[in-house]
Amino acid sequence: MFQSNTYIERRKVLKQKVGSGLILFLGNDESPMNYTDNTYHFRQDSTFLYYFGISHPELAAIIDIDNDKEIIFGNDYTIDDIVWMGPQPTIKERAEMCGVAESKPLKELDVFIKKAGSRKIHFLPLYRSENKIKLQNLLGLHPDKVQEKSSIELVKAVVSQREIKTKEEISEIHKAVDVSVDMHMAAIRFARPGMTEAEVAAEIHKIALSAGGNIAFPIIATINGQTLHNHYHGNKITEGDLFLVDAGYETTMGYAGDLSSTFPVGKTFSSEQKEIYQLTLEAHQAAVSALEFNQPFRNAHLAACLAIFDGMKTMGFTKGNTNDAIAEGAHALFFPCGTGHMMGLDVHDMENLGEIWVGYDGQPKSTQFGLKSLRLAKPLQAGHVFTVEPGIYFIPELIDLWRGQNKFKNFINWEKVNSYRNFGGIRNEENFVMTETGAKLLGKPKPKTIEEVEALR
Amino acid sequence: MFQSNTYIERRKVLKQKVGSGLILFLGNDESPMNYTDNTYHFRQDSTFLYYFGISHPELAAIIDIDNDKEIIFGNDYTIDDIVWMGPQPTIKERAEMCGVAESKPLKELDVFIKKAGSRKIHFLPLYRSENKIKLQNLLGLHPDKVQEKSSIELVKAVVSQREIKTKEEISEIHKAVDVSVDMHMAAIRFARPGMTEAEVAAEIHKIALSAGGNIAFPIIATINGQTLHNHYHGNKITEGDLFLVDAGYETTMGYAGDLSSTFPVGKTFSSEQKEIYQLTLEAHQAAVSALEFNQPFRNAHLAACLAIFDGMKTMGFTKGNTNDAIAEGAHALFFPCGTGHMMGLDVHDMENLGEIWVGYDGQPKSTQFGLKSLRLAKPLQAGHVFTVEPGIYFIPELIDLWRGQNKFKNFINWEKVNSYRNFGGIRNEENFVMTETGAKLLGKPKPKTIEEVEALR
Repeated sequence: MFQSNTYIERRKVLKQKVGSGLILFLGNDESPMNYTDNTYHFRQDSTFLYYFGISHPELAAIIDIDNDKEIIFGNDYTIDDIVWMGPQPTIKERAEMCGVAESKPLKELDVFIKKAGSRKIHFLPLYRSENKIKLQNLLGLHPDKVQEKSSIELVKAVVSQREIKTKEEISEIHKAVDVSVDMHMAAIRFARPGMTEAEVAAEIHKIALSAGGNIAFPIIATINGQTLHNHYHGNKITEGDLFLVDAGYETTMGYAGDLSSTFPVGKTFSSEQKEIYQLTLEAHQAAVSALEFNQPFRNAHLAACLAIFDGMKTMGFTKGNTNDAIAEGAHALFFPCGTGHMMGLDVHDMENLGEIWVGYDGQPKSTQFGLKSLRLAKPLQAGHVFTVEPGIYFIPELIDLWRGQNKFKNFINWEKVNSYRNFGGIRNEENFVMTETGAKLLGKPKPKTIEEVEALR
Repeated sequence: MFQSNTYIERRKVLKQKVGSGLILFLGNDESPMNYTDNTYHFRQDSTFLYYFGISHPELAAIIDIDNDKEIIFGNDYTIDDIVWMGPQPTIKERAEMCGVAESKPLKELDVFIKKAGSRKIHFLPLYRSENKIKLQNLLGLHPDKVQEKSSIELVKAVVSQREIKTKEEISEIHKAVDVSVDMHMAAIRFARPGMTEAEVAAEIHKIALSAGGNIAFPIIATINGQTLHNHYHGNKITEGDLFLVDAGYETTMGYAGDLSSTFPVGKTFSSEQKEIYQLTLEAHQAAVSALEFNQPFRNAHLAACLAIFDGMKTMGFTKGNTNDAIAEGAHALFFPCGTGHMMGLDVHDMENLGEIWVGYDGQPKSTQFGLKSLRLAKPLQAGHVFTVEPGIYFIPELIDLWRGQNKFKNFINWEKVNSYRNFGGIRNEENFVMTETGAKLLGKPKPKTIEEVEALR
């Protein structure tokens, strides 16, 4: 974790922003796989990490703004716990590490909340069912009603702090991206015809674990790159396939990297693959060129959409007026998602707090297929960290559906598109931080051009 | 999954055993890591796998015994789902794969349960909070009351079926153990002074993922083998350390292997390490020799305890009458856990259904430190699959506690024990199936003797 002053300072700012009442933070518990004691690897809640830095299960914290008190709630280990889990710092010692003076056993949380009476209790939207049940017991809210009772003031305050990454955070994210680059280099060097996707995914996973952290999100390692979040690794990979990797490292402090690469399973791209791959690079460059301080990230997305639609026109996949096509959403046949998202302690940073605050400053999102999946649209401020990841995808089910509906017949050459139905998908992805003088690449550069990628194969 | 007949047959037997009412099975959902859509790898509930074989999230099933009806509840994918997650079989197709004729959308489950009126609804104890909330919504039970309302008749019926492994299951478990052996061989060959524990754990993890399945439980790869379930991998390993690995493979069908190995970080064991290591092998052999058809597994545990206490006496760690010492629990200073547990679709098979049924046939467990952690005590039947894993551990915190209390002063030579306080821990573990003619080792043999282990280093 960072020095205790970092957390003290963050909480001080938060108290000023929220102003009054109690703030209740529920840390995460262990997550059971197939029975209570067989758990997935522990992942602390990111907001808990941000304000308290303690990566340990079964903790809660209270910031009592009105009385300027901070308390960590948790239970110390018994000798039985130590025999099974090893010696651990006491809760008091953990609290001291993040500059919190007071600590109490977990059962005192209920007592404390009851004493608060009618004072406002701020809490964040919850994604772990364990915590929904805890809140039901503490506040008498039905688990399904917890989201609507969460505090928008708190959400806005937390987003406004967490979205601006400090120098020490940027340095941590650099580390995350550097290891993420190693994961991708390993995959590009390792994959060979005849292997399974799982063998490549395992090699990527190994690099992350070896570095002492973990994977920041489930690894995508697939010959079906057209499926955006494809976690199936059961296919054999063969000469002629494209292989798409989307994988990132999470540091021991919880900061994420998030990169994508696409490479041929054979030694070189085919000429069709080269043509589309080159276009994704151009769309990528168009998006990067559109990144400007204080300008909406939506511009970068639209620049990528435009480059893709125009490029596909040159190749005979699309036709008609590009701006009209993008306004109507025809480009989403090939690019049904967004160009990027915030990144930090979460790979989609603060996704649990709501995209409407994290990516749109409270403005409404589009409901159009494609544009509705753009997670970040708002003006980029210094300290915003985000991904750039336009791609081109041929999704047979979407082609069949829209072609059957004769949709976008003025914009799409369906015959030509259908002839590429088994092409797959291509995506490159990099991570940037915005500064007052423009966006800067995070981490060491990753091979991206056709020459660079083929040289590694 | 197995052929549909396997599941049809299992459900037929279950219906006969339970006799009447409705049986409600809740499959597992995706498990969120740090926000809803960033999930751990999906793990279906083992009992759901046993009766329906479908490894897919957000499913439920009903067996209506009274009306001889079986229904799978789940939602088919929309085009948005397909874009993100790829094409999938329909729920109807999935139901057919396990021989279930009827399928309905998930929202029909509530309707069906309401129609059941006052008929008995059997369900199992739950370990996933998502499912506790579902049950709250379906049956109006508070999430914390769900365990006590679960059906003991159903638990007993399920345990009686799942504990007897069929030929096709044994063959699947053989595969799980074979890959588990590969994981251990890789670790023993790979570890070198100067590495971190994480690097060794990563190599082990890679073998599991490469084989197409996953790890059956969090990998233990540690120089602090005295901590029984140590999941910390942050230490550097150095010449002179003992390294303990406890790791197992889970096949794509969900069957587990579970092995432990201990080896020197240097090329050879020290003479002190050799002496204790050799004693764990003797305790292991004593336990294996005590495995008998229709005889309690407790005998194997007591044989291991006896071998350990007697062996430690020869070395000057213990003294006094061995049987008295074991009856009073003095051996638990070195061996505070059990000699083994059932293994199958869960690494601790059916732990969520209660050890009292799985390991004790409903008989009460000991409350004595050490013996209370024996997970399996009952007579071994043909088809029981289980681990054998006695170990010797020097736990500084336990030594300090009991020594400070002057506990077991007639059985323990505290001075001598204290001089070994930083020794660490040693465990070997193998998997067996009981047959009418005795216990058989599962999977290929793993190096175990001092010579075999040193030869791999």
